[in-house]
Amino acid sequence: MWVPLDIDVRFAETDLMGVVHHSAYVVWLEAGRIAWMNAAGMPYTEVAASGHHFAVTEIGIEYRTPAYFGDTVRLETRLVELRSRQVGFEYQLHCLAKDALLATGRSRHICVDLAGQMTRIPQDVAERLTAGMARLMERTPPGMKQ
Amino acid sequence: MWVPLDIDVRFAETDLMGVVHHSAYVVWLEAGRIAWMNAAGMPYTEVAASGHHFAVTEIGIEYRTPAYFGDTVRLETRLVELRSRQVGFEYQLHCLAKDALLATGRSRHICVDLAGQMTRIPQDVAERLTAGMARLMERTPPGMKQ
Amino acid sequence: MWVPLDIDVRFAETDLMGVVHHSAYVVWLEAGRIAWMNAAGMPYTEVAASGHHFAVTEIGIEYRTPAYFGDTVRLETRLVELRSRQVGFEYQLHCLAKDALLATGRSRHICVDLAGQMTRIPQDVAERLTAGMARLMERTPPGMKQ
Amino acid sequence: MWVPLDIDVRFAETDLMGVVHHSAYVVWLEAGRIAWMNAAGMPYTEVAASGHHFAVTEIGIEYRTPAYFGDTVRLETRLVELRSRQVGFEYQLHCLAKDALLATGRSRHICVDLAGQMTRIPQDVAERLTAGMARLMERTPPGMKQ
Repeated sequence: MWVPLDIDVRFAETDLMGVVHHSAYVVWLEAGRIAWMNAAGMPYTEVAASGHHFAVTEIGIEYRTPAYFGDTVRLETRLVELRSRQVGFEYQLHCLAKDALLATGRSRHICVDLAGQMTRIPQDVAERLTAGMARLMERTPPGMKQ
Repeated sequence: MWVPLDIDVRFAETDLMGVVHHSAYVVWLEAGRIAWMNAAGMPYTEVAASGHHFAVTEIGIEYRTPAYFGDTVRLETRLVELRSRQVGFEYQLHCLAKDALLATGRSRHICVDLAGQMTRIPQDVAERLTAGMARLMERTPPGMKQ
Repeated sequence: MWVPLDIDVRFAETDLMGVVHHSAYVVWLEAGRIAWMNAAGMPYTEVAASGHHFAVTEIGIEYRTPAYFGDTVRLETRLVELRSRQVGFEYQLHCLAKDALLATGRSRHICVDLAGQMTRIPQDVAERLTAGMARLMERTPPGMKQ
Repeated sequence: MWVPLDIDVRFAETDLMGVVHHSAYVVWLEAGRIAWMNAAGMPYTEVAASGHHFAVTEIGIEYRTPAYFGDTVRLETRLVELRSRQVGFEYQLHCLAKDALLATGRSRHICVDLAGQMTRIPQDVAERLTAGMARLMERTPPGMKQ
């Protein structure tokens, strides 16, 4: 149920230490959960179109090995929490070419309406996320990490 | 009628060349025109609250000397064009401590409504911009560049 | 000799107007010229490894139609200037799904060494850029825009 | 021993939800610890000039209330950990005008040399951080949070 996304490091994402700035990972994680939702059949664009957003309430990242310009980063994302008003994701970032674990992370979100008020995840959205999660589990080939 | 804004370079704005990435200047120019509008008595927050935005239609920057982490950048902004549906700004960026011209730039904007459609600048906004420009001109001390 | 790069708009690239912020395009153009150099057989990572950089001296963008979260942007890049110390690129950005021209742009660069001093483009780099440009021209299928 | 830094929200830092994007806070925290080091008498520019960096190994943020364009964010930073090879900071972000706690956060860092290898914090740097921390504690006026 991990969904992969390959990200080519942008030059603009580096800093004067010569490595990717740690804030870039936060933007990548967001791309990862959007890729997860696409793969699960519940595109975030449709959540937004329904007048809802998954506002970030927590983010945590551990950085292990720096990423460099020229690297392709394999970001893997999975949904780990699905409540009536909250969702949570976990992330792993590798540089496959260097067989290196770059970072791990997690995020939690509340469902908000267009006024920014916390609200229940619409039933349709919750059902499609659940169904997508089930389908993604079936799809994961044997031997792949779950 | 140039309005100054001092910007402390953020570490995150540097790149692996060890200098400020050229995209950071684009964000700074925006802060400069917002500072100009505040100084002119027509805060951009009020333009937005009225249901209008100044969408960017053109941007141009010439980069002369790099900026570094640790630098304070003096950004000067002035309004150079005010039409029924368009505005234009010019910018100069210096590092005062090094007596260096970092960059020059310009931007043009159209007024759009919340649907993104081009529209006339509301009369109130146009009048306050005009009055602000006049007041800023009076304020500029003799010997300062106009 | 236009080299395409497809870019999925990141949520983080949007602003409170609901569209992609104009500064994101500047980062995209950089990704476009890096894609061009890869396609031309002169990866920018090798330029950097040789102790050189193409520092941006000018950038200009005209914004026609906004891009939105959920859009895939087709960025096309070509080299339009190759001098002893300078290079220049042009860019076109479309949203293919909407058949819309989003923006056009250009950038100019000088070759600098690791100390940031302007220097000649290394002969090897210049030759590979020239050969790459020639090869890319041959590859462009008839009927495609040049 | 909390060091304050006031940050004017940049328009570019907002997203299509109309609030500040959560990745902007990560950049702000960095500005906060640089302000702390300046206040403590151990400017980060001097750490970098000595050939060392404090590479981020962990970051965590809890987001309570959104920040908006037009807000001034009061970021307070303190050093909470100082070991031979590591430092840790804590952060609080308020919108004073709205009397709202926006977010809390923390970061941990290892000292690395220019090759990116973990190394001891130079003795001079460690001593100045310790002395600065002591001086900042004395400076905190009674009644202020410690």
